[in-house]
Amino acid sequence: MAVRVAIAGASGYTGFELVRLICTHPSARLTMITSRQQKGQRLDDFYPALKRHCDLEFQEPDPARLASSADIVFTALPHQAAMDIVPELLALGARVIDLSADYRLRDAGVYGAWYSEHKTPELLEEAVYGLPELYRERIRSARLVANPGCYPTSVILAAAPLISKGLVDSDSIIADSKSGVSGAGRGASLGVHFCEVNEGFKAYKVAEHRHTPEMEQELSALAGRPLTINFTPHLVPMSRGILSTVYANLKDEVTAADVDEAFSALYGGEPFIRLGGRRQLPTTLQVRGSNYCDLGWRVDGRTRRVIVVSVIDNLTRGASGQAVCNMNLMCGFAENAGLEGAPWQP
Amino acid sequence: MAVRVAIAGASGYTGFELVRLICTHPSARLTMITSRQQKGQRLDDFYPALKRHCDLEFQEPDPARLASSADIVFTALPHQAAMDIVPELLALGARVIDLSADYRLRDAGVYGAWYSEHKTPELLEEAVYGLPELYRERIRSARLVANPGCYPTSVILAAAPLISKGLVDSDSIIADSKSGVSGAGRGASLGVHFCEVNEGFKAYKVAEHRHTPEMEQELSALAGRPLTINFTPHLVPMSRGILSTVYANLKDEVTAADVDEAFSALYGGEPFIRLGGRRQLPTTLQVRGSNYCDLGWRVDGRTRRVIVVSVIDNLTRGASGQAVCNMNLMCGFAENAGLEGAPWQP
Amino acid sequence: MAVRVAIAGASGYTGFELVRLICTHPSARLTMITSRQQKGQRLDDFYPALKRHCDLEFQEPDPARLASSADIVFTALPHQAAMDIVPELLALGARVIDLSADYRLRDAGVYGAWYSEHKTPELLEEAVYGLPELYRERIRSARLVANPGCYPTSVILAAAPLISKGLVDSDSIIADSKSGVSGAGRGASLGVHFCEVNEGFKAYKVAEHRHTPEMEQELSALAGRPLTINFTPHLVPMSRGILSTVYANLKDEVTAADVDEAFSALYGGEPFIRLGGRRQLPTTLQVRGSNYCDLGWRVDGRTRRVIVVSVIDNLTRGASGQAVCNMNLMCGFAENAGLEGAPWQP
Amino acid sequence: MAVRVAIAGASGYTGFELVRLICTHPSARLTMITSRQQKGQRLDDFYPALKRHCDLEFQEPDPARLASSADIVFTALPHQAAMDIVPELLALGARVIDLSADYRLRDAGVYGAWYSEHKTPELLEEAVYGLPELYRERIRSARLVANPGCYPTSVILAAAPLISKGLVDSDSIIADSKSGVSGAGRGASLGVHFCEVNEGFKAYKVAEHRHTPEMEQELSALAGRPLTINFTPHLVPMSRGILSTVYANLKDEVTAADVDEAFSALYGGEPFIRLGGRRQLPTTLQVRGSNYCDLGWRVDGRTRRVIVVSVIDNLTRGASGQAVCNMNLMCGFAENAGLEGAPWQP
Repeated sequence: MAVRVAIAGASGYTGFELVRLICTHPSARLTMITSRQQKGQRLDDFYPALKRHCDLEFQEPDPARLASSADIVFTALPHQAAMDIVPELLALGARVIDLSADYRLRDAGVYGAWYSEHKTPELLEEAVYGLPELYRERIRSARLVANPGCYPTSVILAAAPLISKGLVDSDSIIADSKSGVSGAGRGASLGVHFCEVNEGFKAYKVAEHRHTPEMEQELSALAGRPLTINFTPHLVPMSRGILSTVYANLKDEVTAADVDEAFSALYGGEPFIRLGGRRQLPTTLQVRGSNYCDLGWRVDGRTRRVIVVSVIDNLTRGASGQAVCNMNLMCGFAENAGLEGAPWQP
Repeated sequence: MAVRVAIAGASGYTGFELVRLICTHPSARLTMITSRQQKGQRLDDFYPALKRHCDLEFQEPDPARLASSADIVFTALPHQAAMDIVPELLALGARVIDLSADYRLRDAGVYGAWYSEHKTPELLEEAVYGLPELYRERIRSARLVANPGCYPTSVILAAAPLISKGLVDSDSIIADSKSGVSGAGRGASLGVHFCEVNEGFKAYKVAEHRHTPEMEQELSALAGRPLTINFTPHLVPMSRGILSTVYANLKDEVTAADVDEAFSALYGGEPFIRLGGRRQLPTTLQVRGSNYCDLGWRVDGRTRRVIVVSVIDNLTRGASGQAVCNMNLMCGFAENAGLEGAPWQP
Repeated sequence: MAVRVAIAGASGYTGFELVRLICTHPSARLTMITSRQQKGQRLDDFYPALKRHCDLEFQEPDPARLASSADIVFTALPHQAAMDIVPELLALGARVIDLSADYRLRDAGVYGAWYSEHKTPELLEEAVYGLPELYRERIRSARLVANPGCYPTSVILAAAPLISKGLVDSDSIIADSKSGVSGAGRGASLGVHFCEVNEGFKAYKVAEHRHTPEMEQELSALAGRPLTINFTPHLVPMSRGILSTVYANLKDEVTAADVDEAFSALYGGEPFIRLGGRRQLPTTLQVRGSNYCDLGWRVDGRTRRVIVVSVIDNLTRGASGQAVCNMNLMCGFAENAGLEGAPWQP
Repeated sequence: MAVRVAIAGASGYTGFELVRLICTHPSARLTMITSRQQKGQRLDDFYPALKRHCDLEFQEPDPARLASSADIVFTALPHQAAMDIVPELLALGARVIDLSADYRLRDAGVYGAWYSEHKTPELLEEAVYGLPELYRERIRSARLVANPGCYPTSVILAAAPLISKGLVDSDSIIADSKSGVSGAGRGASLGVHFCEVNEGFKAYKVAEHRHTPEMEQELSALAGRPLTINFTPHLVPMSRGILSTVYANLKDEVTAADVDEAFSALYGGEPFIRLGGRRQLPTTLQVRGSNYCDLGWRVDGRTRRVIVVSVIDNLTRGASGQAVCNMNLMCGFAENAGLEGAPWQP
């Protein structure tokens, strides 16, 4: 019997991607979608692409109705709006996969410093960071999964082998990331105007982007000591995809073969990680629409640095695909159920 | 038991799209792929996107091996190369879905006038034009299906209701079509250089494109008399999608309601046609990656013309998706088997 | 001595393009710019591109100050806002080049039918339609020039030779136009969101776009009798450029040579029209940033239609470049003063 | 009297940009263009954009004719082809601005290690590196100017203030650069196919790009000691523009104000450098078509790193605009002659 699924905040690109994936999922059934702004409108009027795939109407995001309609609720709401609704959903017996930032940081103080005061700090310990490669077992039994941010997914997966094996100076990490525009959401603003983006590559929120503490939390845990990193996001004139170029200083004696081995050891059996090694650097094109994180790397003997390049689809691996993967783990489905499709090209 | 499928000419975008669709098809299994140029290379080295989805190697396009490896052979070869191989495939017992232009025109003389001399005119009568909306029953039992061109699919589906119901002057049809760049194939040339395409919208092969006689053949058949049309293709700075704007002069007394009715009557039960009516004109974005043809129209009372807008994904509905649909019909599978995925957005 | 120039409504793309052109104009000096929304801000803070090129601040759009600061005022305001300010500017002695639609239609009734009631119909007779190829002499002495719309510029210039020489059936004209996104202005909306435009080619306002009566007015005047046309605008995923594909039915006996001759006769000496003839169809790329309209055509002997392809830069020839050209005529400068730069490529 | 100018290798994007700039240059006259491949063709047939701007024909690249036709020869040839022709041009009395890599590296051994054996090492000492901010005085009297690479221009200008003032650890520099596709030239290849670039952001030649030693040479000179850097180029789906994100570790005690001051001190009076400071990070859009390098920066107190963002137009500042600027210096013209135009937007 199919698990019943609801999406709170289904009108944006992340919501669309969740609907797309759940529509063809073999063991899940979408029962309710909410959107305060689009309340009463049919999803397939709002997104003609979905005609014949979903005949639901947007509802008011009422926790009681969500919890009674669904076993799993995906909350795809802005941060701070999520924590207004998650505690009640849990109390009413639903399991929650939250795609906002609200439950990703374990330390309420850090959340407060980068976002705002946390309203439900008591849930932070219980929440499981939904990166399957690092927390697979805990996710299976979680009531509340904090789905990782798109940039952190790409950066943590790139750096984890190096940090966890102690191959690099843990304070030397620089993550230079580039994202397609869908990462900014579907809201209209000058910053996403076609004519401002087209031919207008730029960096933004340099040294102050809120995904920084999320990366530092996970990499510090792997390092076994607190570390800081530099993270610089950029906006690429394309719709989907993130590429992160991650730099770190190799410790003495560490060889290129050590680096290769660290990646193979950590990711050898992972269903959604594909290693290109030192030979094959990935492009965002090769993961579009899929849950893969593809990784390639180079070791620079002249500067003694390693450079890792990771690519994901920001809407799939960076949000909704990873959320579905987490659902699969929580429900005991095959980890790739509903995520079997090959990437799209071109 | 799954039908065995081979692809002759699998290295281009059309080949990729076939692989993508067959990989997740519930009742088909890919057994052989060919490419003269990439012979010996693994498909997933050539397209890293396909790692974990297909471990086949490109083979020499040998008809005997193709016919023994597969029940259905998709020939995704350049025109003229297809007819070098198709007769032998048929003789050896394979059923063929040809994605080239070689078997689309029933009249060898017309083929000769627009392409070159036809080498196997004796097969033209047997070949079935693979547009399910018009030839569904004949496709089911066909040995050889001529998969329609991308532009003709978009134009014929837009004009068919008007012509077949006799609502418009059959010599008044003008089809102004716009295609993404993947329609030009994957070969490198100045014409597909990013910097020439970007910000460089253009028309090409005006009044001389080879898809013209294909449209005229099918629309003439529907009209019950020979007609000519104007067809103008344009190149859009995007990867996928075709939008055709089709103009025709309404006969006296024909009303907008008549037009609505003609579309509903012809397409009411069609699984891959979605009607937006006079209210909702489609964009290429809403069909990406799917087999849909979405249609909208307007009636201009001032000029007494009807304007139909049709959109398809040129690689899916315009080539590989339609080919899979034809395979489904030929094999008695559900018509949408392997084609259930929702369109991609954005 | 340089003519003093002001721009009312300088914050949009059209305003930017005017500033860019006037900054290097040999005989004009920018003295005042206005914007209600950006009042008080420096132009080069708003557009960092303009640092070192203009140190003006946006002012309130006060007619008295505009008229005292400038000999020529460009009004780049939304339609209806222009007619609130133009009469006073004229009364105070300024000459006005209006880039809105407010003074393009000579018939207040037609304006009322497509826009709204006209507030200053008494000025319509005096206003000169600012298409130099048709109204050069009248522009020289005009007090008020109505700068043509972007689509009309591209369509009228394509059809004028055919209509004025009587080569085509005047009721057979279909103009299928495609525009870059800057034509929609700089305001934020879902329709110009990068992710909606990218890969999302579409038609809009089919059979109801307000530029239609403007084309009909000018083509009717050339035909010597009222005519109607079909005009369909489309949105192309690019920033700049319009390509119009214009279809018309040739009258009996008219030959391809007649068509060639009509274009040469009308445009032979024109500084801003370049003829590619039947051999060279233009792309939007070849006119970017320039005031050119490039034209190519084909005659289809099968259907007896002529197809003309015209390209312009919508911001230059379709708005600000043409406005500067009109200023040059009004002030007795060389017609191409400030417009000498070659198009940009790529 | 105008200086006579020739371009050897004028058929590519760099050649086009040189023609565009020289056409409107007040004191230069283009007298000869060469292209082995296009020999005999008119430039404005090859580039219809240039009709009415240049009526020259491509010639065979004969040094004697070049030297007799021109006072200044721009050599826009592939590396290694330039050094086949430059010595003879100089011997015949021409002054040369070489846009290839052949005369940028002062050490023939370094050239040999990254490119191939140098054929005219005796000219390396005489050649002046054509970055006006660093070598203005030497350029004025140079016979041979080595025009800098596009990436090095963007990186050296970003790092120079930090290195020359000793504010950062000179071995800590990481330059993460992103370029539009025109940087790859106009030749057709799969790598520049629209469908491979669109939505396909990627890194390339990681830790092995040939522009690395050029950056190291100039930054080492500023540091007063040899240094190495990491340089990673990426390909952005856009036509023009480079953005470099440059990271360096601040020395102890260095403050954000020190960084600000270093930039102001070095670039305060520079005509083609615009400083956005810590507040205004630049986008590639704001320098298109211009010779500007716009710079912004941030100091990260948490990691003690400075991040500098620099943008240039790769074809203008990164190639032909800088070459024209060098010509201006060599000929005693105003440094910005022919380069006065404002950037293009959008």
